[in-house]
Order: sequence, then structure tokens, then C-alpha cells
Amino acid sequence: MTVQACVITIGDEILIGQIVDTNAAGISRRLNAIGVTVTERTSIGDRGDRIAEAVTRALQLYDITIITGGLGPTKDDITKSTLAGIFSSDMVRNQAVADHVRTMLQARGIAYNELNQSQSMVPRCCTVLFNRHGTAPGMWFERDGHIVVSLPGVPFEMEHLMDDEVLPRLRERFDLRQIVHRTMITSGLAESILAERIAEWESSLPPHLHLAYLPSASVVRLRLSAYEVDGESVANEIDARFEALRKLIPQHILGFENATLQAAVHELLTSRGKSLAVAESCTGGSIAARFTAMPGASAYFLLGAVTYSNRSKVDVLGVPAETIERYGAVSEQVARAMAEGVRRISGADYGVSTTGIAGPSGGTADKPVGTVWIAVSSAAGTVAVMKQSGTDRGQIIERASGAAVALLRDKIINN
Amino acid sequence: MTVQACVITIGDEILIGQIVDTNAAGISRRLNAIGVTVTERTSIGDRGDRIAEAVTRALQLYDITIITGGLGPTKDDITKSTLAGIFSSDMVRNQAVADHVRTMLQARGIAYNELNQSQSMVPRCCTVLFNRHGTAPGMWFERDGHIVVSLPGVPFEMEHLMDDEVLPRLRERFDLRQIVHRTMITSGLAESILAERIAEWESSLPPHLHLAYLPSASVVRLRLSAYEVDGESVANEIDARFEALRKLIPQHILGFENATLQAAVHELLTSRGKSLAVAESCTGGSIAARFTAMPGASAYFLLGAVTYSNRSKVDVLGVPAETIERYGAVSEQVARAMAEGVRRISGADYGVSTTGIAGPSGGTADKPVGTVWIAVSSAAGTVAVMKQSGTDRGQIIERASGAAVALLRDKIINN
Repeated sequence: MTVQACVITIGDEILIGQIVDTNAAGISRRLNAIGVTVTERTSIGDRGDRIAEAVTRALQLYDITIITGGLGPTKDDITKSTLAGIFSSDMVRNQAVADHVRTMLQARGIAYNELNQSQSMVPRCCTVLFNRHGTAPGMWFERDGHIVVSLPGVPFEMEHLMDDEVLPRLRERFDLRQIVHRTMITSGLAESILAERIAEWESSLPPHLHLAYLPSASVVRLRLSAYEVDGESVANEIDARFEALRKLIPQHILGFENATLQAAVHELLTSRGKSLAVAESCTGGSIAARFTAMPGASAYFLLGAVTYSNRSKVDVLGVPAETIERYGAVSEQVARAMAEGVRRISGADYGVSTTGIAGPSGGTADKPVGTVWIAVSSAAGTVAVMKQSGTDRGQIIERASGAAVALLRDKIINN
Repeated sequence: MTVQACVITIGDEILIGQIVDTNAAGISRRLNAIGVTVTERTSIGDRGDRIAEAVTRALQLYDITIITGGLGPTKDDITKSTLAGIFSSDMVRNQAVADHVRTMLQARGIAYNELNQSQSMVPRCCTVLFNRHGTAPGMWFERDGHIVVSLPGVPFEMEHLMDDEVLPRLRERFDLRQIVHRTMITSGLAESILAERIAEWESSLPPHLHLAYLPSASVVRLRLSAYEVDGESVANEIDARFEALRKLIPQHILGFENATLQAAVHELLTSRGKSLAVAESCTGGSIAARFTAMPGASAYFLLGAVTYSNRSKVDVLGVPAETIERYGAVSEQVARAMAEGVRRISGADYGVSTTGIAGPSGGTADKPVGTVWIAVSSAAGTVAVMKQSGTDRGQIIERASGAAVALLRDKIINN
């Protein structure tokens, strides 16, 4: 039996786009991890009639409904009173919740007031889920074998309640089989080309393994999913399939799950004891930030230079002024001189550079917005490539950064 | 008449929690900005029956339905063929789309194949919305005055299509009144205490202004919203209400909206014709990346130096080696020398620096992980401050970057 769930997130701030709804993803990931399939996700505003309508509909269609939001001290208890109505229950004071709220506020030096008192009122028919990290309790309702759980909207409170209270009860309540997701990260092939290259591999997949392509600026992720299975044997089966795929396109496999290009390079530089310096023009510090975000980067990251102006390319990196004048700042020659310059002044083993036009202005017929030259310099010499990196500023910066790290990885591996 | 919309995002990756659905927020914000109320948001998987069910339901309930996802070259055109079915239309080749896809791939050096060809097939009854930033076209459908728009799931492609194609058409198609949201950011008061302190102010609000509390870890945002109004006069009315609130809790007001610190500095530097250079150690390029992400940054951003190693601090910025030896790399003296050095070598009006311990290792009893020195140098002199920026590497980098930009803003305004 497939156990199906619906996730409902409540809050005007979600519907007007003021916040990105990370709770829905966090809940879905957790449900999947214990074998519950999320079939639908819905967001609605802070209105009793909308909440009643959405919850009543979900209660009929799905085994499990998880709700977050609408529970804070200033939310007028819309969610709680609406749930009491749906389950024809009255509201009662829960002394354990009241004591907990009072203790918690005291510890933070905050006075306990009327608004906090209202947080201890809950529908009589529910099971209270103790929220040790906040003042709004979780609530568990049941009708005809269907479960409705209401959780606070503060992300880490929701996460702890899911992990500590909700998931263990769901495991006990339902006979759950497993859902397996494994993701392989590829780089260097556009989605359509990748699909062509692995068409035969794809068509040989058994029907219980579902393949999904997830393209982004610099990588394409391939996910294999299996629902309602014996987890261990399917995980092994997926590993074998991915191993066969690796043999087809060995140079395009970055790793698994959340592997990134920069993490792969970080690993290579660290294990080989090599060092890195970066000279960025159009990517504006993004490449340096990718590396320095990782713990341990200080072992190999010697210098980053964001040389936006021509003068700084000359003064800091030693790019000859006449090279810029003759070929333009966005040129193969300048990219090479930048990579060589930053390597020379830092003493790093590898020097990487970017110079391009991120837009929206500054493009010409010859060098349109999105034109980026990328170079990597090492003891083995200097290579440079030109990438047309799109038309949107943010996208150009991200793609060019990704392409530069990819070229660096390639040079480290092949030299 | 309230014009109501539903946003439907499609993709198994959303339902399993592999990605956070940022598109739904981006679409909702844009619809609100032109006066369209988003009443519901739904996410469903890559399955034709689910898509058909959700779209058919939304078509009956709402004036406007915006769909994203399910359009890539490997998605089997589930969304397109489902929409063709709903609108009883056959599929036809669109030559303009075919030409565009071919040109776009050619520019990136990618071969045009069968999968790409399928991207130019569209339901006959739809109006094609030209996607200059990608290969999947947008599609506009109408039935009995109800609009359904299908957009690609790549965020920046969706954003450009919304701004360039969808919003102008919706404005023309509906007689829209305005929705106004204004947010004031408070700090230092817990939600329940804040609510108590401003209770009188809150109860004096007229019925057409809706107040929402949005608490997070360190701030509580207060949003005033008005629907279906004359935008300008209500915006003024909200400003006056917030001004009254500011007088009640002056020391707890941080600012408005999402206005970022770096956007404020960008504006100040641009309007005053001043230039900037940044020397980063622990923030690793994040400050440079914040500025260079904004179009027009090249007018004032002269140089960024990510001087992670001691040697690069000496060689590139001219920090005296004995200063590092005597006080340590993470010290007021080194922060000052870095800010002054980067200002000197770049010729910028302002030099900003950071040096600290981002962790997880490298901390000492004296200088624990999270210790960051920040300096700003200008013609008026150099100032330096120390910030304890937390315990998590990502958080330390973000907080220290924010504090550095805040200090810079302060110096620009007050000098």
C-alpha cells in the first residue's frame, strides 16, 4: 500500500512571495526518508475558511496531512480553532504546555503575558506533541485512519518536532516500505546532449527505477528514484546502474548527491598538496567565495584578486597595459596574462582567471553580453577558453564561475 | 473585482524535497506587485493525470493560473501535451521557436538534436511567449476569460518571461487595482512583547490595513498590507503609520523591506562618484561578490583582494610582515593595514577589510572561532571594529560581510 501525504503550509507571507517556503521541502524530504510519498503540496493564507477547505480536502484524499504555520502568539489561533472545528472539538487548557511556555520565556528574561497564555489552549481531541524548542505545541489528530498533524512554522522547531515526535509515530502507525533516491552529478554536457549520449543506458533501466534530469547553470543532476521497495537491495541496484553510467561518460561525472565542482577541486588540491590563486573580473569574487566557503580552504587558497578595473589588472596582476589596449580587457590574451599574473605574484601552483561582460550593458556586436574568457595557468602551461555564458547577469556570473572551476578541475586531473 | 491567481509548480524534485521551490515565491511576488492576489499555491509531480487535475481545478476557481516546470528537453513534454489535452488542441511546430533554439545552441557550441526539436512543438491554441534566455517557450492559454500560463522551471528564465511577457499582458487584460505591502524590521523585542508594546498602535489601524508579525531568529518583521486600493495614497498612509510606530520603539527599528545594505552603499557610491576596494581574508570574496552582483558595480568597484595567506597580505596589500608576526593575522592592526593597503594600491576612495576565524578550526581561547576584525579606510582616516560573528562557518562569513558593509555605509554617510 502506498502511503500518501499532503503538506500544507499556511501564511500570507508565503502567498505574497515575501518568504521562500523552505518548510515544505524540509517536511517532504523527511517524509520520503521514512517511505511516505508526498503527492501534493499546497500553500494558503491566514484565513480560517481557506484552511478548513484545504485540510478537509486533504483529509479525504491522503493518509497523512502535515500542516505548518498559523500558530504564533499573534496569529489569533486561526489554525487551532479551525482544526477544533473540523474535528468537532472544544478548546481546553494544557497545563504541561502552559508550564513549558512560562519556563522558556523566563529563561530568556521575557515576561509571560496573555498572548503566551493563549498558546496553551488546544483542541480537546488532539494529542499534544511537545515542542521543546519553542512555545507553540504540535498537535496530532486522527479520523478514520487518516492523520492530520499541525506544526509551528519556525523552521527549526518544525524540524525537531518532525524528527522527534512525528516520524517515530508515523513509522509505528503505518507499515511503510522504502523510497530510495540517488543522484549523480554530471558536468560538461548540456541536458539534451547528455540525454542522447546515455539514451541506451536510460532505456535499459527497469520500470521500477525512475530517471529524472535536473539541469542547472553548471551541472546536470541525474536522479534515480524507486518507490515502495526494499531499500537496501534497490540502493545496491542503483549503485550498479550508476557505475555503468560512469563508464559511459567517465570525464563528466563529478560525484553523488550534493557534490559540487568546487568540492571536487577542494579535495584534489588538498590531497595533492597543491595551491590555488584566482584573478576574477566579471565573476567578481564568486569563484573565491565558492572555495573559501569550504572549511580547510585556507590550506591551499593563497590569493583571490577581483580586478574589475583595467588599472588593477595592470597594477596588481602585472597584465601589460598594451595587451589590454590592443586586444581589449575581454580577450584571450588578457585572460592568460591574468591567470599567469595571479599565479606568479601568489606563488600558487594553479592560477585561474575570468574576464567577460556580465551585462546588462557593455556588450558589443563582437563581444556580446555573456562573452567570458577563462584561463588556467600551471607549471604545465596556460590554457584559455571562451564561454558564451548566457544573457542574464546573475546567470553569467554563475555559469562562468562554474566553467572556470570545471576547467581547473580538468587541468588538475589531466596534468 | 478581486483578480485571483493560483500558482502551480511541477516537478518530482519539489515533492521529494530535493529542491526548495523558489519559483513559487518569485511568481507570487510579481503578481502581487501588479495587483493580482495569489489565493493558492500548489506543487505536484511530473505526472500527466496530476497536472490535468490541478490545472482543471485551478481553471475553474481562479482568474489566472501560472504553471512552471515540466518543459525541459528530457521531460517528455508532459506539461505541454497535458495542456493541449485540457484545451482540446493538437500540437504544431512553431518555426520561430525552432530557429531560436537552434541559434541559441549554436552560440554555445551545442549540437541541435531531436530532443531540442521537440521543444518547438506547442499546442496550436496557445500564444507562444518568446523566451530569449532559454530553449523552452512560454505558453499563454485562454478559456472563458480565464488565463493559464505555462513557463519553464529554470528560475531566471521564468523571471524574465514574467517581467517581459506575462505581467504586461495581465495588466492589459484585467482592470487591476493595487496591492500594497510595506515591511518594517524590528530587533530586540520578542514577538509577544513587541505585540504588547504596540497594542494600542495596532488597534488604531483602519480595517483596510492588515498587520502581520513575521518572527525569525534575530528580528521580527511587521508587515502592513492593503488589497484593492489606490496604491499611492495607501502607501503614504502606511508610511505615516510606520512613522508613528518608529516613535514608540525608536531603538528597535532596523529598517524597511528587503533593502540590502550593499544596495544602499551601491546607491551612495554611484551618486557621489566615489570608488571602492575590498581586502578580504575570512569573508573570502563574499563582500566583493555582493557588490559585483549588482549591475553598474564596475563604475566604482576597483579592486577586491582575497588575501587568505599571510604572504599575500604582505605581498599584495603591503601589510608589514612584523605587524602580522607581532599581533597575529586576526588583529585590529592587520585589519587596518589591509584596508589602508587595498585603498592605496587601487587608488579607491574607500578601502574595506576583514580578517577573522571562520572555523570550524583555527580558534584559540583568546580569539575563538567567529572573531572577526573589520576596518574601513578613507581620506577621513581608518576605523576598525571587532565582531563576534557566531559559530557556524557560513553564518560567520555572512554576518561578517554584512557587518563590514554596514560599517562602510556608516562611514560614507557620516564623513
